[in-house]
Amino acid sequence: MNEFELIARLTKSLPTNEAVVTGAGDDCAVLDLGVPDKLILFKTDAVVEGVHFTRETPPEKIGRKALARCLSDIAAMAGTPVAALVTIGLPKDFDAGFVAKIYDGLKGVAEQYGVAIVGGETTTNPERILISIALLGTVPRGRLVLRSGAKAGDAIFVTGELGGSLAGRHLDFEPRLAEARWLAEHFTIHAMMDLSDGLAGDLRHIVHASKVGAVLLKTALPVARAAKLRARAGADAKPATLAALTDGEDFELLFTVAGQDAVKLLDGWKKKFPEVKLSCIGKIVAGEGIELRDKSGSQKLNAHGYVHFA
Amino acid sequence: MNEFELIARLTKSLPTNEAVVTGAGDDCAVLDLGVPDKLILFKTDAVVEGVHFTRETPPEKIGRKALARCLSDIAAMAGTPVAALVTIGLPKDFDAGFVAKIYDGLKGVAEQYGVAIVGGETTTNPERILISIALLGTVPRGRLVLRSGAKAGDAIFVTGELGGSLAGRHLDFEPRLAEARWLAEHFTIHAMMDLSDGLAGDLRHIVHASKVGAVLLKTALPVARAAKLRARAGADAKPATLAALTDGEDFELLFTVAGQDAVKLLDGWKKKFPEVKLSCIGKIVAGEGIELRDKSGSQKLNAHGYVHFA
Repeated sequence: MNEFELIARLTKSLPTNEAVVTGAGDDCAVLDLGVPDKLILFKTDAVVEGVHFTRETPPEKIGRKALARCLSDIAAMAGTPVAALVTIGLPKDFDAGFVAKIYDGLKGVAEQYGVAIVGGETTTNPERILISIALLGTVPRGRLVLRSGAKAGDAIFVTGELGGSLAGRHLDFEPRLAEARWLAEHFTIHAMMDLSDGLAGDLRHIVHASKVGAVLLKTALPVARAAKLRARAGADAKPATLAALTDGEDFELLFTVAGQDAVKLLDGWKKKFPEVKLSCIGKIVAGEGIELRDKSGSQKLNAHGYVHFA
Repeated sequence: MNEFELIARLTKSLPTNEAVVTGAGDDCAVLDLGVPDKLILFKTDAVVEGVHFTRETPPEKIGRKALARCLSDIAAMAGTPVAALVTIGLPKDFDAGFVAKIYDGLKGVAEQYGVAIVGGETTTNPERILISIALLGTVPRGRLVLRSGAKAGDAIFVTGELGGSLAGRHLDFEPRLAEARWLAEHFTIHAMMDLSDGLAGDLRHIVHASKVGAVLLKTALPVARAAKLRARAGADAKPATLAALTDGEDFELLFTVAGQDAVKLLDGWKKKFPEVKLSCIGKIVAGEGIELRDKSGSQKLNAHGYVHFA
């Protein structure tokens, strides 16, 4: 049983109650706790030594990444983060200075985005450092964007550039909070999520949740320089397009809007966020699955997000 | 640097904002998100294999305990739990059946107390299972009880019996949610917390936060049968009173009320909760520190919660 199968089994028939608007399966859980004009967003995310960072990673960047990942999930719902709890699992022989610097990184990104750190705990995790963040946010009622609203005819957009994130950007990315709020304020965004597993895998979540299919244009994919550099690095290098589709840890926004809004949105974006790339990479279609098209034809992306290149 | 020193260092000058009512240092963080009649409670708590449970612990009880610990913290604020996120760190070779049973335990206690499980994640923690729960709750404005409100002259109460919890009760305890809400509804509770580290250590949090001292009456301490049995078990056994003061994992309520309310509260409690013991164990005094009194005199409890028995 792999991780996805286990999650499917565990999240079947979870207890619910009248406060739940959206439970497991979107970027954040959404709750209605009776705030007149807002819904509550609730998210947890963990990073583990040896999996998401190493002892060689600058500790401030570990802390920064731990919280920024969660902030990116709040962005994916067009929300505003409010307060975080920090759980740190530590070996017995932890280096207090290293842990304090992790916290400095956490505090820095929290201050940058107006998030309060309201506590948490330290616990023992003998073999490695583990940091789990719990984050609360809010979103105005009527502005919430889920993964499930994509419609045939929608244009598919992605912010920034994709692929090669592990060369550095995964530690330094800025969560697209302001961008997502601006989008939800000025346009009817049908579906949105943040890219963490890679475009090919993540877009599958949108098409599954929305019961539609998608066509991507290979030449329209914004391939990051880091992915291109690595593609030239040697015989075992990953093709740059494949990297953009599957590397993951991009923490960019993926969203869809009605085709008729696409040009207006692109124009408005260029004025508002001139330094952040926005690319229209394809369209939502009736049916299911994801096709990747170029001038030589069309290929299916398979269930694990990998395209079979000819 | 030990855990307490590290926490003191990490929690100094944490980022805050206008939503924060109470940050780090109480049983839960308290937020004002604009619900007209309620405040929001926010808590995380983790259990780790080899520390809080073993592979021999029945997995349903591991899941039950993981969530019940957090519920006990919501009880400590006189709140009502609403929704939980579950983070599970798993070794690569995890036993899917074992993990599913942990989840069954989680779901069972969630259903029992009306809590929705709204998602979470699985992540890799190669050497051992780690479960971190993030929990949201609410408390009516004006009913919130903190640790910091104890006043000289208050009577100190504790629910249930203390000590020897590791013999079994730590896996089976019922969080005192209904009891705490009843207390806050019918009486002016000055300070309250749940007992997790042991009475001697936990009461120190109340007297520190409230800038008062306390006197405990040794004969009034409700020593659990499990602690008494273990005290008789052999030469290396812990005296039963010391066990009641320091074993921890009791998950009972510790609270203070004005001395003049004490008799009325005890009478009301006996009618409302005839099956749950409630003991008046001492009083809050001006000054600082905690004294333990019996007919032979008085002893100080030291900073680590251990009393030096003669």
